[in-house]
Amino acid sequence: MSVTLAIDAMGGDLGVSMVIPGTELALKKTQVKDLRFLLYGDAPAIHIALEDAPLLKACSEIIHTDVIVTNYTKPAVAVRSGRKSNLGMAIEAVRDGRAHAVVSAGNTGAYMALSKVLLKTLDGINRPAIPAVMPTTNGHGRTIVLDLGANIECSAINLVQFALMGEAFASRVFNINRPTVGLLNVGSEEVKGHAGVQEAFQILRNIDDFNFHGFVEGTDIMAGTTDVVVTDGFSGNIALKAIEGTTRFVRDLLQKCMSSSWRGKLGYLIAKPAFDRVKQVSDARHYNGAVFLGLRHIAVKSHGGTDAIGFANAIGVAVSMVQSNFIDGVQNRLRLLQNQQEQNKLEQERAAAEIRLTETVV
Amino acid sequence: MSVTLAIDAMGGDLGVSMVIPGTELALKKTQVKDLRFLLYGDAPAIHIALEDAPLLKACSEIIHTDVIVTNYTKPAVAVRSGRKSNLGMAIEAVRDGRAHAVVSAGNTGAYMALSKVLLKTLDGINRPAIPAVMPTTNGHGRTIVLDLGANIECSAINLVQFALMGEAFASRVFNINRPTVGLLNVGSEEVKGHAGVQEAFQILRNIDDFNFHGFVEGTDIMAGTTDVVVTDGFSGNIALKAIEGTTRFVRDLLQKCMSSSWRGKLGYLIAKPAFDRVKQVSDARHYNGAVFLGLRHIAVKSHGGTDAIGFANAIGVAVSMVQSNFIDGVQNRLRLLQNQQEQNKLEQERAAAEIRLTETVV
Repeated sequence: MSVTLAIDAMGGDLGVSMVIPGTELALKKTQVKDLRFLLYGDAPAIHIALEDAPLLKACSEIIHTDVIVTNYTKPAVAVRSGRKSNLGMAIEAVRDGRAHAVVSAGNTGAYMALSKVLLKTLDGINRPAIPAVMPTTNGHGRTIVLDLGANIECSAINLVQFALMGEAFASRVFNINRPTVGLLNVGSEEVKGHAGVQEAFQILRNIDDFNFHGFVEGTDIMAGTTDVVVTDGFSGNIALKAIEGTTRFVRDLLQKCMSSSWRGKLGYLIAKPAFDRVKQVSDARHYNGAVFLGLRHIAVKSHGGTDAIGFANAIGVAVSMVQSNFIDGVQNRLRLLQNQQEQNKLEQERAAAEIRLTETVV
Repeated sequence: MSVTLAIDAMGGDLGVSMVIPGTELALKKTQVKDLRFLLYGDAPAIHIALEDAPLLKACSEIIHTDVIVTNYTKPAVAVRSGRKSNLGMAIEAVRDGRAHAVVSAGNTGAYMALSKVLLKTLDGINRPAIPAVMPTTNGHGRTIVLDLGANIECSAINLVQFALMGEAFASRVFNINRPTVGLLNVGSEEVKGHAGVQEAFQILRNIDDFNFHGFVEGTDIMAGTTDVVVTDGFSGNIALKAIEGTTRFVRDLLQKCMSSSWRGKLGYLIAKPAFDRVKQVSDARHYNGAVFLGLRHIAVKSHGGTDAIGFANAIGVAVSMVQSNFIDGVQNRLRLLQNQQEQNKLEQERAAAEIRLTETVV
């Protein structure tokens, strides 16, 4: 199957000088035979960058845009003027079927706003969510956490939708059979937490053929207790940034302690391959490629501060989502839930009618 | 100054066999000359444990209680029957002035409920909060994060009270001059976050002589950007457990990578002192001793799963709070805020009266 990706060539802190090498790297690593790219942005700059990217040059087309959405463009401004921009046109290519997915490392707010307007949400989804993929020691080696911050305040129904989208993401993109899903709370006991998580818990436990684990705690994220961890965007954003900060804290502490004595320095040199392995597993770049889940098309968001390796991984995520028919997977799941809820409603109505009938007879 | 502590001798997963050695250890480490202990619980068990704790034996008194609050006692049950229990009587000793502070590693829910009933909250505090002390690479080497989970849903006023209590804790217990205070949010820009943090931000920025830093993010906790980080109990609990889980993840990963090759093993042996230092700094036991902030007396909560070292540190926290007149410090701070708010109200009323007067004249 041939896959075409629309790439925002100007996005991210490093812009075209990161995006083009990153896409070239993705091409080198991919198993997909017929991969093609549409590159949106400033044509002269893209041309120069392509000189060092022969593989990409051979399978890409440049679409010049005069308007450029940068890290500083406000979402509202991006929506108003952005359809003629690098980002807007890349998104439109997906909507109009010229590409299978769009990838950008640009401004999250502008990207999300434009994607919502141009790509629309799936039936049964109120708000898109952004998942993050975290490494774990146990379980399947990774946990998908959502929402990462797209939705600051969430209702129980939002959390249920996140759970279904996260499950589809885990099974389609990471090939996990019947992924387990946990709802993040301050304790694993059923009585804990506020009304929102309590209500979501009751809905999730009653979904057919759904591997709901129940409540999980902050420690469970990196332990890999479940394949998917669901939470609101406020707590999710704070938890994931706290994890990022802790990884940095431990790394800095290790560095400081190792370099402050000759024994530390020597031990480090000898064990360097082991340290490199630790660095590799805990390296956020390998888990790069957040997705706007819940849209009618595939839009992948690479971290703005990433390098070529990170961007290549974001492209890998987009390709997996295309090849696994991710959108169909989520849509089917949502339809099943809707049918089940309608069925429950019918049954409740029937039961109520029977009671009324009995009362009339009596 | 002589300090007397009321100790729940039965609390924690390991009970008396952890509490007594922990208290003995605290005595060995302390600089305080005249430290005395009241030990509440099962007298025969305490007597046996004291055989191996000669220092403690010489400066403690045992108060036998037939009723024992365990890890499984429900808070409501503890409150009903608990005033004759190990925990209830230890708390009452503080309320009645026989001890300066109470320390327990017991059941958090029961301890919090009994403390609220028996010790009451300070004027101007609606709900007590639990802070955690985290190690950091920068700043003053530690950050105080609150609330850790006592309050699942928080209003803006709750957050403001947490900020004032956290500031008093940082300055009195950790001797930090004019501690900086940050409000946890999904971004550091002023426009981010829900209504609760927005409103708290506006109140905090207007408090006189208060070192308010503004919004901070999850990454700032372990970076030590501010001395105090304020958040609601839901996000705070999740963030702190996520940090705990990440530390464990990195430790397990290091262990796995180091032990899977001879170079790793050798390097580890040579650099062991450096690894030990890393372990020591990131060891949660050294930061043990959560406090119920906002009560009229000092109540310190040691982690239920801690060992003697952790319990000794909790005792150290209690002693610091007594010696630094922590309660007076918080109370003064709260009075200043109340005066300032009353002053603002008066000024607003005066301004309104002047407007009315002008309108009448016109």
